[in-house]
Amino acid sequence: MTTTNHDKATATTATGPGWTKVSCPCCVSERVEPLVLVKLGEKVRPETKRWLIKLIGTPQKEGGAALLAHPGEDATGDIIMVSAPRCTLLQATEELGLCKTYNTGEMETFSYDDRDNFRHSGKQIFLTLAERQYIIKYELEGLRARRDVRIPGLADNYTLQHRDNIWQKMTSAGVVVETFPLHNRARLKELSKSWYSGNQLSQPLDSVNAYFGSTVGFYFSFLDFYTWSLLPPAILGLCITYFSMAGSQAEIHEEDAGLTASGHMIQAVFSMLWSTVFMELWKRRSSSQSYRWGTLHLAERFAEPRPGFHGHLGMNPVTGRMEPLFPEWQRDLRMALVSIPVVGLFLGMVVLGMLCFYWGENQVMWLHDGWDSMVSQTLLYAPSVLHIVYTNMLATVYKRVAQSLTEFENHREESAFQNHLTAKVLVFTFFNYFAVLFHIAFVKQDVPLLRKRLASLLIVTQLVNQVTEVVVPFLVDHFISAPHRTETEDDPEEDKFRNQITLPVFPGLFAEYIELLVQFGYLSLFSCVYPLTAVLLLINNVMEIRSDAYKICKLFRKPFSAPAANMGVWQIAFEILSFVAVVSNCWLLTLSPQLQRMHHEGQMSNTDIVLMAILAEHVLIVVKVIVAALIPDEPEWVRKKRAHMQYTSMQALRQQVSTIAVHSLLLQDK
Amino acid sequence: MTTTNHDKATATTATGPGWTKVSCPCCVSERVEPLVLVKLGEKVRPETKRWLIKLIGTPQKEGGAALLAHPGEDATGDIIMVSAPRCTLLQATEELGLCKTYNTGEMETFSYDDRDNFRHSGKQIFLTLAERQYIIKYELEGLRARRDVRIPGLADNYTLQHRDNIWQKMTSAGVVVETFPLHNRARLKELSKSWYSGNQLSQPLDSVNAYFGSTVGFYFSFLDFYTWSLLPPAILGLCITYFSMAGSQAEIHEEDAGLTASGHMIQAVFSMLWSTVFMELWKRRSSSQSYRWGTLHLAERFAEPRPGFHGHLGMNPVTGRMEPLFPEWQRDLRMALVSIPVVGLFLGMVVLGMLCFYWGENQVMWLHDGWDSMVSQTLLYAPSVLHIVYTNMLATVYKRVAQSLTEFENHREESAFQNHLTAKVLVFTFFNYFAVLFHIAFVKQDVPLLRKRLASLLIVTQLVNQVTEVVVPFLVDHFISAPHRTETEDDPEEDKFRNQITLPVFPGLFAEYIELLVQFGYLSLFSCVYPLTAVLLLINNVMEIRSDAYKICKLFRKPFSAPAANMGVWQIAFEILSFVAVVSNCWLLTLSPQLQRMHHEGQMSNTDIVLMAILAEHVLIVVKVIVAALIPDEPEWVRKKRAHMQYTSMQALRQQVSTIAVHSLLLQDK
Repeated sequence: MTTTNHDKATATTATGPGWTKVSCPCCVSERVEPLVLVKLGEKVRPETKRWLIKLIGTPQKEGGAALLAHPGEDATGDIIMVSAPRCTLLQATEELGLCKTYNTGEMETFSYDDRDNFRHSGKQIFLTLAERQYIIKYELEGLRARRDVRIPGLADNYTLQHRDNIWQKMTSAGVVVETFPLHNRARLKELSKSWYSGNQLSQPLDSVNAYFGSTVGFYFSFLDFYTWSLLPPAILGLCITYFSMAGSQAEIHEEDAGLTASGHMIQAVFSMLWSTVFMELWKRRSSSQSYRWGTLHLAERFAEPRPGFHGHLGMNPVTGRMEPLFPEWQRDLRMALVSIPVVGLFLGMVVLGMLCFYWGENQVMWLHDGWDSMVSQTLLYAPSVLHIVYTNMLATVYKRVAQSLTEFENHREESAFQNHLTAKVLVFTFFNYFAVLFHIAFVKQDVPLLRKRLASLLIVTQLVNQVTEVVVPFLVDHFISAPHRTETEDDPEEDKFRNQITLPVFPGLFAEYIELLVQFGYLSLFSCVYPLTAVLLLINNVMEIRSDAYKICKLFRKPFSAPAANMGVWQIAFEILSFVAVVSNCWLLTLSPQLQRMHHEGQMSNTDIVLMAILAEHVLIVVKVIVAALIPDEPEWVRKKRAHMQYTSMQALRQQVSTIAVHSLLLQDK
Repeated sequence: MTTTNHDKATATTATGPGWTKVSCPCCVSERVEPLVLVKLGEKVRPETKRWLIKLIGTPQKEGGAALLAHPGEDATGDIIMVSAPRCTLLQATEELGLCKTYNTGEMETFSYDDRDNFRHSGKQIFLTLAERQYIIKYELEGLRARRDVRIPGLADNYTLQHRDNIWQKMTSAGVVVETFPLHNRARLKELSKSWYSGNQLSQPLDSVNAYFGSTVGFYFSFLDFYTWSLLPPAILGLCITYFSMAGSQAEIHEEDAGLTASGHMIQAVFSMLWSTVFMELWKRRSSSQSYRWGTLHLAERFAEPRPGFHGHLGMNPVTGRMEPLFPEWQRDLRMALVSIPVVGLFLGMVVLGMLCFYWGENQVMWLHDGWDSMVSQTLLYAPSVLHIVYTNMLATVYKRVAQSLTEFENHREESAFQNHLTAKVLVFTFFNYFAVLFHIAFVKQDVPLLRKRLASLLIVTQLVNQVTEVVVPFLVDHFISAPHRTETEDDPEEDKFRNQITLPVFPGLFAEYIELLVQFGYLSLFSCVYPLTAVLLLINNVMEIRSDAYKICKLFRKPFSAPAANMGVWQIAFEILSFVAVVSNCWLLTLSPQLQRMHHEGQMSNTDIVLMAILAEHVLIVVKVIVAALIPDEPEWVRKKRAHMQYTSMQALRQQVSTIAVHSLLLQDK
């Protein structure tokens, strides 16, 4: 924007060997750090590569991305390294609505015109590595053809039309195969030292956010908060287990037995309140973290269609532009006639699995009755284990099916796609993991079976997860991939970057969140039956923090991470679960040993027990709603900061409008 | 903004006899319609009045309101009439974020710079009467002192300090007594003809919105929609009543009796579903109306402190300005130690009233048993009637108490004040109107008593309301006030306007909404007990539409009405009620005659019935949530229009920012 003709002459100084030139004098620097690697197709012709490099380096007002590009070893190689000059970064920071430290020490929404009043705005540390890499992705994916252009070295059917998204077209033409951010070895080493290789208890969340971005930052922050929040229920669980064991050893004392039985109730009521308070406190922590990470006031943007979206060309009623349109009713029809039946089919397979499990359970019981030995004792656990394995396999298959179904529904926006996919997976996950438990609890009303089942689920699932998630990739990485990827200090930088291509793509946080959600379900829905749940989860999560950190640092390519203000849809999923927990716990209470004994002794009728549970349910839901309303979602100071940011941006807007008016007057006068 | 020195010279043409001059040539017009009347205190000196008139007429950049003022009959009179020139109106339209018809025929957020592309933007009909009057209020109440000013004719303690709100200070100094919009006799006559004086079934809602503004528009639109939505439950209620009467006359047929009893269930399930669908459809209608009335995309503004707010001077952390601050914890303390106990006391008085009612009920029963006659028959209704009167009186007292309590809580913003007041009144209203009914239904489990009580409540409350709301003001207006206010065609205009001062202030829509809410409560919570509820409400509401319309047109001063996009907090109140309705209906079902008979015949145990009700409750709540989610809150076309508006305003913003950049470059070059 600030470039005029005489600036261009001074801007021809090199910015680093091999890099494209910057057009802006303030962005010239001696040394350029490669941030993003673009992997090209093998058959891409050199002229196409040159065209692409030139496009990346062209200023924005001429239709380019205003970034820096480097052709790798030579002009014929199949990689392009990309970096970004200062002005492009700062302009994108304003566009994204990121907040940065102002010279008053407060966070303010960044404004390019006011950049000199922001601390460190001239230095590299102003933006985190993750932010700089995301901005490059944002600029590349936002490239649009200004007019119809034939791309050198490509067939005619890939000619760009006006307003075509260039990066999408390049990807579908096979020119661009992959675009991913590069690891920074030195900073990664530093991060991993303070994160998981020592015995430290707290995670360096700010550094995680700076290196991996706020999406990843929020996941680890939540994992951290959740793990430490497990301490109170774990301690309670240990106490209850201790007292109930003491009670069962000395069953003569009437009072002790009463104490033991009421442990069930204490645990149930406690876990309901705990889950509510936990979610509220997390929201507070999340919002103050969002303030610190500068994502409290992100700009809303009009969403472009996602790459896979297709339809008939028509005028978009929102933008008034020609683009592919897909009628809403057709999408609804596809959902109603295809998606829902298929999802239903899978839910049916869950039920089928459940029936088989009962059949198996009966068989081993019968076997054990006839042939009482250690083997048959062990066999008692076989149906549970088999069923858990079946459940996990079904979940894996379903995940792919859900992906294709959502693809078939042809959503226009990426966010709609993600929401529908998440909803599908969540419904199935709830059903798959919890249907059996609910059936045992409320249809069979068999507390000992429920307890056994819960224990085996907790132990087996966690073992399986740790093995499949970490041990297998670790072994593959060390003994299969690594020998091909020996790396010495003397290798050229390009080769080290190129090596990152061989790492597998990071699979995203979806599976991690699902795992936490299922855990949280066991704990909040059923923990009163098996008080040691929280203890087992606590142990698992302390390990999980380390293994997840190791995984994301070492085993995968670095992922892009868009700035985020919270956990998004997962927050809602956890809240729904903590709501269902109230209902579940109230009904589990009616199965509590104490009430059952009172029923047998004739002190309470069945109706009384049920009415008591209803009353408890309604009262506790009201208490939950009130507690949730009384604890504000944001700490007072964050609320004020947010109001302040909104106020200043409103003021700035008004100022801009009046500035324009003044300018137009001045121009008219001249 | 567009005024330069040479413009001022041409602007001295008169805009109407006695009116202040406009500084902008495009706003000069022959005839000015007085829109708002400012009533001054009796002791206000002429120099103060002159100063105020001058202030109102001064352009905004010199610290005035840029409106038009007229001193009434002469300079010493105690009124000022205010109107607004075109440019002020259009600028405020942009500030408020109102939408207007673009030359494409679509509604677009109004932009002053682009005004020539909006249809009729040069004519008076561009803004509705209500909008023009609200803008005058908005400008007057937004007046702030630019520097310390001594006001002529006032004592020194009323000297304005920098940034003082002038209108608030003038009001507290007794200079300005009242500010209210003027009726336009001709248009009012036209409106009343098409609204309530004929036999028309539909209301002229667009004209109501144009004349009274969208707050009033939405109330009448809701009343209209609600009334016609009563048709299905009313028809069902009539059918059920007919069949049950036929059934009771021929009780020999077993099947008929079954049909009758199941009427109870049909009504319960129907009213649950009806209330959900009703609220969803209303939201859709409300949003399309909001589009038509141009309030879909209102600008958010930073709220100024309300007039009654006081505190110690300090720096507001949001704006960075010095203003009175009141610590949050002190407000919380006041709420916890004063508001909650007092509200509790009133709820206690409700319970006391209920106990007295039961005592009275027993007394008349005992009396009737001893002395069976027409008189004692009538006396049976006495406790109910007395209790209803007590209830209504308590509600009136409470309303004042709630007002003072909320005042004492010292909320900074008007919206917070209103929300706390509404919450207080709603809690009490629910308790006051429904506590007895819930007690009868669930503690006493006495369906006949519930039915009797509901019938008397419906009939008595409605009669009382119609009388106190319309008949009394009508009589007062016609026989007490009117003789002092005879008006002839020959009277000067000023006198006619002055006469409007004698009308009482419009009491607002709070009481009207409460009335509808209570009605809706009877219907959705208990209608299955008394199927004729909907019929009675339908009749009442058809009358209510007319009487409310008559009231607002004839009996009160015209109220100001801020542009609104929906019913606001009332929407939430109705939704909560329709949620409680599910719970209530499910438990009323357990009292249904059919189930009770099955219980007596031993077909079902008590536990079975309770379990059935629980199952029904949970299933119906899930169904309700799903239905609410499946019916989108906005019609598809409104969603698209809204997205389009957001998109264009985002584009406009981006364009402005780049325009500024270009301008600064141009200016630098010169």
